[in-house]
Amino acid sequence: MTSKKNRQILLVKRPVGMPTEEHFSFVDAPIPQPEAGQILIKTRYISVDPYMRGRMNDTKSYVPPYALNEVITGGVVGEVIESRAPEYEAGDMVLGNLGWQLYSAVDSNRVKKINPDVAPVTTALGVLGMPGLTAYFGLLDIGQPKEGETVVISGAAGAVGMLVGQIAKIKGARVVGIAGSEEKLRFLRDELGFDAAVSYKTANLKQQLAEACPNGVDVYFDNVGGEVSDAVLSLINKGARIPLCGQIALYNLEKKDIGPRMQTQLLINSALMKGFIVADYASRAEEGITQLAQWLKEGKIKYAENIVEGFENTPKAFLGLFSGENTGKQLVKVTEE
Amino acid sequence: MTSKKNRQILLVKRPVGMPTEEHFSFVDAPIPQPEAGQILIKTRYISVDPYMRGRMNDTKSYVPPYALNEVITGGVVGEVIESRAPEYEAGDMVLGNLGWQLYSAVDSNRVKKINPDVAPVTTALGVLGMPGLTAYFGLLDIGQPKEGETVVISGAAGAVGMLVGQIAKIKGARVVGIAGSEEKLRFLRDELGFDAAVSYKTANLKQQLAEACPNGVDVYFDNVGGEVSDAVLSLINKGARIPLCGQIALYNLEKKDIGPRMQTQLLINSALMKGFIVADYASRAEEGITQLAQWLKEGKIKYAENIVEGFENTPKAFLGLFSGENTGKQLVKVTEE
Repeated sequence: MTSKKNRQILLVKRPVGMPTEEHFSFVDAPIPQPEAGQILIKTRYISVDPYMRGRMNDTKSYVPPYALNEVITGGVVGEVIESRAPEYEAGDMVLGNLGWQLYSAVDSNRVKKINPDVAPVTTALGVLGMPGLTAYFGLLDIGQPKEGETVVISGAAGAVGMLVGQIAKIKGARVVGIAGSEEKLRFLRDELGFDAAVSYKTANLKQQLAEACPNGVDVYFDNVGGEVSDAVLSLINKGARIPLCGQIALYNLEKKDIGPRMQTQLLINSALMKGFIVADYASRAEEGITQLAQWLKEGKIKYAENIVEGFENTPKAFLGLFSGENTGKQLVKVTEE
Repeated sequence: MTSKKNRQILLVKRPVGMPTEEHFSFVDAPIPQPEAGQILIKTRYISVDPYMRGRMNDTKSYVPPYALNEVITGGVVGEVIESRAPEYEAGDMVLGNLGWQLYSAVDSNRVKKINPDVAPVTTALGVLGMPGLTAYFGLLDIGQPKEGETVVISGAAGAVGMLVGQIAKIKGARVVGIAGSEEKLRFLRDELGFDAAVSYKTANLKQQLAEACPNGVDVYFDNVGGEVSDAVLSLINKGARIPLCGQIALYNLEKKDIGPRMQTQLLINSALMKGFIVADYASRAEEGITQLAQWLKEGKIKYAENIVEGFENTPKAFLGLFSGENTGKQLVKVTEE
């Protein structure tokens, strides 16, 4: 049992290639004191997400890089334990972009209140949060699946992918997921109702995909990039749409990502490819959350969480994203007092 | 002076890599007789276009392959010399997708009448035809340039590219063209009013492009593909749009087109890339022609033609497209009686 103090995780080295635990450092710090207008938050759940790998590089991306020797930040669900802001009181649950630390003191407008009666608070980091909105807007705004079309999803058993597939099913599409383990493939088929699921570890991915997609590919929701995407792109139909959500296969590459250029394939199929991040849809977030909550209530979508216990395991949970350890949303439950 | 007979150009061998004159063969044939409902057309101008190279391969593309030992087809302007259809009479000028031959007899609904009082009849194969519509819809529907944005065009001195740049100028964009000779670069800057023009034959294309695009690239209208496109894509801004119109650099490649995958670049910039062909906009062709004719009349767009004389030179004119010989629309004027 530690005495009451804050504990923080810093990025202390920029990874080249795959990060390891030595890129992170744990430090002790005093528990911050909330100023007027601020609230003191006890961290309950920390979200670890693939996009964070990009922020560890010192290069331009869609979010600025993490500063070295500072606390890493990301999606956090916490409990207000002291409030100096009128709209919050102790016991309120909140969602915010906060530090990987046990306690945070922030201006009250930096967080959003969560209603724990609607759904478990962890859903604010998953199906009713960033991953849910990513799936919703990427698929519906860019992918625009129509009834009877074929939607292929890479990283299909991840937090975003599993929602994409279920939303595509709601829209009447044939849904084919790509994932890396037998357990995940079974989960996609048996638990989530995907029409087919294919392992990217197979010797002949393109052939297996072609069999799973007898009518070709109309929408390819891409979470991974690299050779998996090369295989899917070889099967696209005229007028295909390809939302680019992530390229996790490449995040830890040490050399340039070289492969077949796919412009000709897009050209001869009048196909569309579009990158996006959830922030592009910030003004429509309410629409997305409302619809996702409705589907959740009606039992039309399910979600899965992979919860690791203990603040000390946060770096390990993050690193596990790149070895495919998680089925569904990867979270850390902070059990420390 | 030949006696009156038809003469045709057949595709007799499928090229692997760069085609040569030996892939074509000239044959004599009787002049066809029009049946009821048909017209007999004397070929006046033949259009040679880069997309035809794709049709010479026996592979799936956006148009079916040419059959071996049959007459090659494409855009043709001709004169009706005998009509067995009520809506045509001898002397009418028509546009059609017809054979590379001196005479064609076709159903009258296979061609469109051209009004020679509006503009020279050759414009039906250029600014007021397929290339004009390709530029118009690719730029405005996919590229959507806004005032003050930077539009980069590869293959800028070709039939499509030179119109794209002028339309982008009408929309208030900064326009940068990429072409292959000093003469073309001067033409783009001095005759067409491009803001800058860069040679793709320079040792450091990326650097020169960066200097020509101090505010980055918002729209990249891609006619060429390959390393030129790699360089432009490295400079795109957040929210960039990339209409894929052609990939002429690749049409004669004998091996797979390998290069840096650009999905990450699209992802971090929320950028859109979309292939298209003019047929995608068939239902809006009238809109495009009307607007282009209006701009032409107002002197807001200019066009250039590169006209080779003599039916026998048709293959040579086609092959010249791949060595960059044409500034503007490449046509063959059929002078044979």
